[in-house]
Amino acid sequence: MDLAKHLSWRYATKRMNGKKVSREKLDSILDAISLSASSVGLQPFTVFVIESEELRKQILPIANNQPQITECSHLLLFAAWDNLTEKRVDEFIARMVEVRGGETESTQRWSSYLKDKAKNTPVEANFNWLARQAYIALGTALVAAAVEQVDATPMEGFNPAALDELLHLKDKGLRSVLLLPLGYRDENNDFLVNKPKVRREKDKLFVEL
Amino acid sequence: MDLAKHLSWRYATKRMNGKKVSREKLDSILDAISLSASSVGLQPFTVFVIESEELRKQILPIANNQPQITECSHLLLFAAWDNLTEKRVDEFIARMVEVRGGETESTQRWSSYLKDKAKNTPVEANFNWLARQAYIALGTALVAAAVEQVDATPMEGFNPAALDELLHLKDKGLRSVLLLPLGYRDENNDFLVNKPKVRREKDKLFVEL
Repeated sequence: MDLAKHLSWRYATKRMNGKKVSREKLDSILDAISLSASSVGLQPFTVFVIESEELRKQILPIANNQPQITECSHLLLFAAWDNLTEKRVDEFIARMVEVRGGETESTQRWSSYLKDKAKNTPVEANFNWLARQAYIALGTALVAAAVEQVDATPMEGFNPAALDELLHLKDKGLRSVLLLPLGYRDENNDFLVNKPKVRREKDKLFVEL
Repeated sequence: MDLAKHLSWRYATKRMNGKKVSREKLDSILDAISLSASSVGLQPFTVFVIESEELRKQILPIANNQPQITECSHLLLFAAWDNLTEKRVDEFIARMVEVRGGETESTQRWSSYLKDKAKNTPVEANFNWLARQAYIALGTALVAAAVEQVDATPMEGFNPAALDELLHLKDKGLRSVLLLPLGYRDENNDFLVNKPKVRREKDKLFVEL
């Protein structure tokens, strides 16, 4: 399969037409997110899949009134763990032991490493590291959406504190990191739809040593 | 194409066998990185493609002696801009104007937005934001490698300051963020090769609203 063709097709869609993404395509995108890499395999985030129109209307002003919030089919919110805690490490290790059928030297090593990090790293540095893992999943989701010919617009431009409050994320130990509306481009109203993709020259982006 | 199949095939390869990745496959992975999304399309990083054995031997102790550093075919280093500067914004906008054939209202809006950010955001917060963009590209690179049946191991576990010094990154206004060895799994010596993938239960990872 020609990945470059899919990636050239995608762009940060500015206007969507409200058409629904099928359950099958949505599940393919969510499967890719689930299979995405993360540090130690921790997957330190929750992905909210927001279809509710009512809720998306409430999110609209929190996201600078970007029209894709209500014009999309499903709005994904990547919310990272607000901190690494001993409880979360224990749950992660328990899951690893469950899937792999028993403790090993490496599960014990990961457990110590992560608990040490939980205890000795400042909360904000831990959160920053955890939030970065959501960006890997975002990269994976963007490829998966393009392969399914579903449009997607990564967004950092919103008020995370207001969104955390609306969705009671603090109580869940989560903080909003990224929004990703999924839907279909409105070819008649999106000024960006026919613009050529701008990319840095390869000899500036890459250095071979 | 069955993306889930490719993503299920990949894993964080712990031992590689030294076999070389072809130029064609390497270029497919680099093309995907180049086409990857980033905030405003800024691509605020340089990707070093390190094939030199001599250099990889020097990097080995800086990366906790992880054997993939020397057992891989090519070692990618994602190094993010150390800060957003007016000069970098001007270069980005000039490239956009070149590719799209002229200034528009939106190029002017992006220019003001980015210059304001360059001037008024603390350096460390800017760097943190720029570094996150490299994680999106990493996510894209991992998918591209899997599609090409090339193994890849994302690494945060190295000493960024020592690597910056070795490669004189400070002079280039860059800071090391991520390493990604590309190569082929050594099936006989990698303890992880046949272990089942551990992923959080879907009803914990996703919340539908």
